Amino acid sequence: MKNQYLDRFEIRLSGLGGQGILTLGKVMGSGLALGHSYFVTQTQSYGPEARGGASRSDLVVSSNVISYPKAESLDLLIALSQEACNMYYRNLKSGGLLLIETDLVKQPPVNQFIGLPFTKLAKEKIGLVQAMNTIVLGAATYLLPFAQQRVMRKNLEEVLPAKIRDINVKAFNLGYREAKKNFGDPEELWRANAVIVEEDNDDYDSI
Amino acid sequence: MKNQYLDRFEIRLSGLGGQGILTLGKVMGSGLALGHSYFVTQTQSYGPEARGGASRSDLVVSSNVISYPKAESLDLLIALSQEACNMYYRNLKSGGLLLIETDLVKQPPVNQFIGLPFTKLAKEKIGLVQAMNTIVLGAATYLLPFAQQRVMRKNLEEVLPAKIRDINVKAFNLGYREAKKNFGDPEELWRANAVIVEEDNDDYDSI
Repeated sequence: MKNQYLDRFEIRLSGLGGQGILTLGKVMGSGLALGHSYFVTQTQSYGPEARGGASRSDLVVSSNVISYPKAESLDLLIALSQEACNMYYRNLKSGGLLLIETDLVKQPPVNQFIGLPFTKLAKEKIGLVQAMNTIVLGAATYLLPFAQQRVMRKNLEEVLPAKIRDINVKAFNLGYREAKKNFGDPEELWRANAVIVEEDNDDYDSI
Repeated sequence: MKNQYLDRFEIRLSGLGGQGILTLGKVMGSGLALGHSYFVTQTQSYGPEARGGASRSDLVVSSNVISYPKAESLDLLIALSQEACNMYYRNLKSGGLLLIETDLVKQPPVNQFIGLPFTKLAKEKIGLVQAMNTIVLGAATYLLPFAQQRVMRKNLEEVLPAKIRDINVKAFNLGYREAKKNFGDPEELWRANAVIVEEDNDDYDSI
């Protein structure tokens, strides 16, 4: 499933200001692009509404140059607040996956979702609430069929300042491990998602 | 001219990796949004081509929610490398403004442009080549009819780590000052640009 041809895959990271959503988007985007030969656009929106504390970053990933960076039919929605979840779950495409922060999204608006208590994990297992976004990165890396754990972690190490590198690698590994333990086989999760059922295609570089 | 109604204004920041283009986009975007009540999307593209050293960030600024974040008819193109200038000047709209790094864009592909030796200014006047992007921010703030110097500088101070704050404020002020000295009245520069000839409209909040 890894390094497959991707027509277009849309991810939205959403939550509250202060949760490190924009940094998460940047690190995820650079990891998927630089490590995997995909084209990625990462869009963040600022505006009067951002003052209310909402934060959001959209990623579009493709094997081809991306001419339309707007995400409007999400393959993966990561919602780290109830408000973000309520606002964006309607943008999930059929077969898309909803990943929530289970302590912050108390009332998921749909029945099908997966989740972890990311904030609690950051506090209790890492001892640093700010590492929450990196735990999410680890979990997302497990879930994304085209993301390679080794490559994503290496990119994370490269973009972070030295003094916070070790603790973030620990957080990344924790997120990956917890996702593996709790979510089962990602291929099963994505089976309904048409984007992902395509075959491996090692020739995408030459398209 | 300040705080006017903006239908849509597109800015592209482009140059080489290592010039701080993505940080510039982020700081400019948050300054225009949080300080001025505009909606802003900031899109950065990663991909196989990024390995070649190109870097780019697009901003779309509007008084309204932005439903189409792709920049394709630029009001302002900032080109900090010859390659970026060659690649993107065709995306300038009629009446759009081209701002270049005069030591790095030796052969501007068009006759109408403005420029400063940003890198040399950073080295010689600030003593830190990495402050180049903040000098560009200062110059752009002078040029943009809807950007307020005080607000942009305040936002810059807020988003930067304490230890590099003072030197960046100095760089910002230098860029603003050099632009004022060399470019003349920005209203004259933008006169051909239809977006900017609209009247002040203090009612945009209620639209």
